[in-house]
Amino acid sequence: MDPSAETLTFPPEHALQLEPHLPPIQPTTTASHGSPPATHRPFVTLTFAISLDSSLALAPGVRTVLSGAESKAMTHYLRSRHAAICVGVGTAVADDPGLNCRLSSPPSQPAHHPRPIVIDPRCRWDFTAEAKVLQLARAGRGLAPFVVTAAREPPEERVRLLEGCGGKFIYVAAEPDAADGAGGARLRWADVLAAVKCEGLDSIMIEGGGHVINSLLAAPDNELVDSVIVTIAPTWLGQGGVVVSPPRTTAADGKPTAPLRLTNVSWHPLGEDVVMCGKISR
Amino acid sequence: MDPSAETLTFPPEHALQLEPHLPPIQPTTTASHGSPPATHRPFVTLTFAISLDSSLALAPGVRTVLSGAESKAMTHYLRSRHAAICVGVGTAVADDPGLNCRLSSPPSQPAHHPRPIVIDPRCRWDFTAEAKVLQLARAGRGLAPFVVTAAREPPEERVRLLEGCGGKFIYVAAEPDAADGAGGARLRWADVLAAVKCEGLDSIMIEGGGHVINSLLAAPDNELVDSVIVTIAPTWLGQGGVVVSPPRTTAADGKPTAPLRLTNVSWHPLGEDVVMCGKISR
Repeated sequence: MDPSAETLTFPPEHALQLEPHLPPIQPTTTASHGSPPATHRPFVTLTFAISLDSSLALAPGVRTVLSGAESKAMTHYLRSRHAAICVGVGTAVADDPGLNCRLSSPPSQPAHHPRPIVIDPRCRWDFTAEAKVLQLARAGRGLAPFVVTAAREPPEERVRLLEGCGGKFIYVAAEPDAADGAGGARLRWADVLAAVKCEGLDSIMIEGGGHVINSLLAAPDNELVDSVIVTIAPTWLGQGGVVVSPPRTTAADGKPTAPLRLTNVSWHPLGEDVVMCGKISR
Repeated sequence: MDPSAETLTFPPEHALQLEPHLPPIQPTTTASHGSPPATHRPFVTLTFAISLDSSLALAPGVRTVLSGAESKAMTHYLRSRHAAICVGVGTAVADDPGLNCRLSSPPSQPAHHPRPIVIDPRCRWDFTAEAKVLQLARAGRGLAPFVVTAAREPPEERVRLLEGCGGKFIYVAAEPDAADGAGGARLRWADVLAAVKCEGLDSIMIEGGGHVINSLLAAPDNELVDSVIVTIAPTWLGQGGVVVSPPRTTAADGKPTAPLRLTNVSWHPLGEDVVMCGKISR
């Protein structure tokens, strides 16, 4: 069977454990009791699966199955609970991800698919009509991506492809990337998230890859993260993997920033894996 | 209060969860029903605490508090359940560890202290009478270390210091270390463990540091490990830490060894941390 056609189920008792760490469920009426105040950014959930040695994959571009079936179902449950799902261009190029929700749902209640957001400052993602995410969008089994870019004029063919199935490019101004000797540019997380919010997307789960995760865990951008959900699989991928470990930063006074700690932590065994939920300590 | 004088308690219900992952309790009678067969090595438990990004410490030689009070009590419970406790010379030099058991025990039942085993191939640990582990041994609050070395004639002063409180040097022949350009030597784990067993020590917990842990997780030596108990603290230490991640190895046919996986895995939330118990998959 085509694995992308598979439907998954996530037990309600597990879903209940995650609830305190998820964005508020959107009201279906006009009642706004308990709604969070409007902000300039969506609710941000950072979520990924790692090995015991904090690797996402054996090597860049090598898709690596780490977590079990239960954790996979959880990922799709999270997709059903966020308005958008975000990956970096490296993941889009390497994995050709579907970025839809395959959680089984009753016929009376069609699946909620998150809006894929691909961060691609320099239009490196050279997709065609055969990209999995576009195929799923055309088949009504997912949404077409919004590609956030610093390019003022993305390639016309790709603009046409995206717009043909409901996606688009979103322009965000870049700032020079001090770490890039080739004179490259980077997008500021605050700007990307503001652009997502402007599209009416009130929550976003950020899934990967390594570059995206590490940049969001680094100070000061980690202040933008509302919730962290990490799955840990009981394996060591060994040295040379794609590692999640934020760069060390220094505060304004020149002293090293304290290590990033989580609060409100809960751990949930799930199959052979464990799922950690928490908030970044301010 | 001197923290080394503090006594700790570990709740029986937590101890029960660990039991399947611990060496058999030594029989106090001659009954040997259910005893494991005699082997050439002790029961080996590999145990350590890491951050989410698999770091033991912020930098080499920087003692870093990662886990909470409950995890610390667990470590001392594990010390009460093993005949020996092992660290590498780097840890002995950097941390001046006590390596005793500070678990509270009723007056009728004196504490069991594990025998410290320090692996020091080239006699780099230049200890004096003030080393914490020797102070504790002289005070009857711990045992004096056995220092496993490849040096045929360790410094006389240190021999005298160790033997004065019940410790000693143990000679184990080294093999050339291919990875050491300076012509250094390394000890084979099988030889070290055989030497420990020869001392009548039937179980050993191996605690650190990074070099010791990574060498024991690498194939083929990971076959010598009976049980793995890892505490994970909800923090990221960031890039540049002392990382647990085994080197990648190749099998006899030249192909990469498969990533190391654990079986019989159980996860136990403990305070803000989680404790993972498992066995290395063969």
